[in-house]
Amino acid sequence: MDINQYFANRCTVRNYTDKEIEPELLIQMLDEAAHAPNTGNMQLYSVIVSRTAEEKAALAPQHFNQPCVTGCNVLLTFCIDINRFRRWCEANKAEEGFGNTQMLLAAAIDTSLFAQQFNTIAELHGLGCCYLGTTAYNAAEIARLLDCPDGVVPLISLAVGYPAGDSKPSDRLPIGAIVHFGKYDDYDYSRIKAIYADKESLEESAGFIAQNNKENLAQVYAEVRYPKASNELFSKSLDEYLDHTFFKK
Amino acid sequence: MDINQYFANRCTVRNYTDKEIEPELLIQMLDEAAHAPNTGNMQLYSVIVSRTAEEKAALAPQHFNQPCVTGCNVLLTFCIDINRFRRWCEANKAEEGFGNTQMLLAAAIDTSLFAQQFNTIAELHGLGCCYLGTTAYNAAEIARLLDCPDGVVPLISLAVGYPAGDSKPSDRLPIGAIVHFGKYDDYDYSRIKAIYADKESLEESAGFIAQNNKENLAQVYAEVRYPKASNELFSKSLDEYLDHTFFKK
Repeated sequence: MDINQYFANRCTVRNYTDKEIEPELLIQMLDEAAHAPNTGNMQLYSVIVSRTAEEKAALAPQHFNQPCVTGCNVLLTFCIDINRFRRWCEANKAEEGFGNTQMLLAAAIDTSLFAQQFNTIAELHGLGCCYLGTTAYNAAEIARLLDCPDGVVPLISLAVGYPAGDSKPSDRLPIGAIVHFGKYDDYDYSRIKAIYADKESLEESAGFIAQNNKENLAQVYAEVRYPKASNELFSKSLDEYLDHTFFKK
Repeated sequence: MDINQYFANRCTVRNYTDKEIEPELLIQMLDEAAHAPNTGNMQLYSVIVSRTAEEKAALAPQHFNQPCVTGCNVLLTFCIDINRFRRWCEANKAEEGFGNTQMLLAAAIDTSLFAQQFNTIAELHGLGCCYLGTTAYNAAEIARLLDCPDGVVPLISLAVGYPAGDSKPSDRLPIGAIVHFGKYDDYDYSRIKAIYADKESLEESAGFIAQNNKENLAQVYAEVRYPKASNELFSKSLDEYLDHTFFKK
């Protein structure tokens, strides 16, 4: 793959062939991915590999049975992990205090950088990947299924396999909408309308609006796909889970 | 750069020449980086570019005056951003409910993937980068300096410039310490000793232990570099800041 063309044209792949990812290749790619930057070189993350049909099927309901969970070759669950660091401290009579918001965020960033470096490496090897946003929704149950001890929080799941069929890159906001020079330049009404104009005018956007009986695309996102009630419900269970297993240790 | 050699050999670069990053190249790299995966294609992030000596100097104390902040060519502050999405919702009479833990984490992941795709692209262009773990420590003050409105949380800072001198890759735990098959395989004492043996035997580790008057490397990490009292102090200010600007909107 031409590296100069890759980044702007990469796309999420949700359908996969039956071809197996060679175990040696998987480990090699994870090994390379672990060279992503991380906080203080503590590597506060783990990854759990689900390869068998049974392992993937067990996790599927926690991802609302998205077909890529059972359809992929390998499902990777990237976890925040302060447990391993803690065990190291215990073995060395070191007193740690990592069960707090700063370390949760630091570890979440490191876990994400590791996952994204893996995603890039895998795609450059011709594999297709799909991030699952559902992991944090059901983190407590996924942690139970995967035997995660306190301090290990499932954060990101990535379905991986050799692509079946074509996928196309999805749209992005114009880069000028994302980048601010010097200070944050807040958005007024007319700039918001300009920024989202292309996205709103996509043929698929009209389809989503009609399908969901809404007036516009913002309502589809805010009221159908990511509605307040669901966000708050899933946040409540995540907050409780983190209080019991991450913050209260 | 040979892509097959790059990932396992990349390294953090903290010293830079005076050579300017061409503004067009910076925008092009950010544009390519924004093609990283993200939750529901909502792009809940922004990046603030600090290019002038004044802009970098203003932020330096918030990063404990690490030399790379003023020594880099460009300092990028990657922010969680639900403000832009909110403005879009306001303009479209859509009722959003994004000020909660799920969306904080989803946006933190997306911000991290965007930053890491940028890091990779920049390094492949021969630039050197250094992540600053200090951003979340002083998020409130950085947000104030950068005019970030409610819903915009500084998360990751990246110093970028053309490398001066050589840097060497840092060590990593053996990949077998990070990867679990099927279920999380918790660590017993002897496995912990084996996993950390190489890191503990590095010459620089002996130096850190002596310098800090500690018995072992775990104590240096847990009690000197990331001590409980500091972690809790910075967590308290971060919690308060998030309560006031992210969760309470």
